[in-house]
Amino acid sequence: MINSRSRLFAVFGDPISHSLSPLLQNYFFSKFNVNGVYVALRVRPQRLREAVAGAMAMNFAGINLTTPHKQEILSLCHHQSPEARLIGAANTLVFKDDKIHAFTTDAAGFLVSVRTHLARFSGSHVVLWGAGGAARSICFALSRLGVEKLTLVNRTALRGEELAAFCREHLAIKTVALLSPDHPELAESVTRAGILINATTMGMHPVTDAAPLMRFDLIGKHHFVYDLIYNPRLTRFLFEAEKRGAAIQNGLDMLIHQGLAALQIWMYTDYALDDRMYHEIVAKLSAELI
Amino acid sequence: MINSRSRLFAVFGDPISHSLSPLLQNYFFSKFNVNGVYVALRVRPQRLREAVAGAMAMNFAGINLTTPHKQEILSLCHHQSPEARLIGAANTLVFKDDKIHAFTTDAAGFLVSVRTHLARFSGSHVVLWGAGGAARSICFALSRLGVEKLTLVNRTALRGEELAAFCREHLAIKTVALLSPDHPELAESVTRAGILINATTMGMHPVTDAAPLMRFDLIGKHHFVYDLIYNPRLTRFLFEAEKRGAAIQNGLDMLIHQGLAALQIWMYTDYALDDRMYHEIVAKLSAELI
Repeated sequence: MINSRSRLFAVFGDPISHSLSPLLQNYFFSKFNVNGVYVALRVRPQRLREAVAGAMAMNFAGINLTTPHKQEILSLCHHQSPEARLIGAANTLVFKDDKIHAFTTDAAGFLVSVRTHLARFSGSHVVLWGAGGAARSICFALSRLGVEKLTLVNRTALRGEELAAFCREHLAIKTVALLSPDHPELAESVTRAGILINATTMGMHPVTDAAPLMRFDLIGKHHFVYDLIYNPRLTRFLFEAEKRGAAIQNGLDMLIHQGLAALQIWMYTDYALDDRMYHEIVAKLSAELI
Repeated sequence: MINSRSRLFAVFGDPISHSLSPLLQNYFFSKFNVNGVYVALRVRPQRLREAVAGAMAMNFAGINLTTPHKQEILSLCHHQSPEARLIGAANTLVFKDDKIHAFTTDAAGFLVSVRTHLARFSGSHVVLWGAGGAARSICFALSRLGVEKLTLVNRTALRGEELAAFCREHLAIKTVALLSPDHPELAESVTRAGILINATTMGMHPVTDAAPLMRFDLIGKHHFVYDLIYNPRLTRFLFEAEKRGAAIQNGLDMLIHQGLAALQIWMYTDYALDDRMYHEIVAKLSAELI
């Protein structure tokens, strides 16, 4: 029950009306006995500064950020975690002594979400579609998992080159290649890679017949195919991959674990999600998806 | 269930941790099918401007204000209702087209709370203790009820004089007197008056043996005694008055109705509180009180 001691948490984004974070975090609050409320607030880019100053004046207990605020927020923060600084983005804010501290939990969420596939990553070759903020966090996570070869696939050469340079210079991934989606060498890279990751919006509701890769015949039993999309839960990319015997993983698990990581930062508490809770929250989130 | 479409409402105050408004409004939301969340936020006086600008940037659906912000807020608003302007205070904000509109619902809440006693007020003599913001709203309501004689009782002569002048000049109450609590004429005023109202904090938890008037022998069957305090629900003032046959009323009903009036402003909807709901919310609020 919400009372006058309930602390307020929020996610800022624009658009925001499809965010699953309120369901997720309010579920956590009820399970972990946090007297809190988590809401989704539409904040336009030009109002981000006012919103953050206001949230501090109103004594918010924690803030999440999503598109389009993850990069812009950094210039408004007094302290950035080393990871947020390196990735150049933050999704979690903490107010402490009237200062804003920025963190990012996307890479942590990804790392937890592949916990049963860790052996696949060390020394492996990964093909990653996308070069946005999500892709950048994934690259950070991949470097921590010991990935040695990374093929980036991106339509826009400039953004792709930026991410490739970041991976080479800051993440120390041994071999980083950049290909356009229609490059003839992509087929061979996909075939040879052990892990395929989609960090683009290709295949996301409502354009569900799209996929980052249309040559599904290149996918086989030896692949682990990860799609960051969770709406639909089974994208065409994952559906076709599963049909061909690949191990698959959608983005829901990463969403849940990046949220849990944010809660742990806000509450300085190491909450454990047991199996029953995990299935309960997956069911709750899935019910909200089309 | 709170989801990403849930709208956020809040009350700003300092202190705020004993506010009953979250219980009240969240109860209303559940009963009237408003997809909203109402929280209490501690906002210090020097941060009010930032908090309000932030709430607008975050697209809050509505704001309530309590001590110490009710007067200060007016200078930050683009539009004031005639009543808010006259009383010089607001407890309810609406954001519309990036402008702040200020309203006050305290007088409306008081008026509804005396609906079964209306006949007592017209042409009557009222003794009112207090000269703060609450007393000012009560004076406004009393003038609308046709009260002709008002005796104000206040310790601080200056504040009392200000309120007396306001009543004379702006509210057109025929006869307005100001007495200190120990003035010898007060006994006669109390005896002759039909209505006694406490708008001070005398008798509020935790100093529950206090009362604005200690000469309880002056109270009789002909009196209607109203105490704006609701914690405890039965103050010493009300207890002693009831013992002597007076009709009594505590502040809970006014609290409920000023809240309902705020909700009606935010939602442009004329919600009706039926008897079952009224008793349910009184029970809910009472359970929170000591």
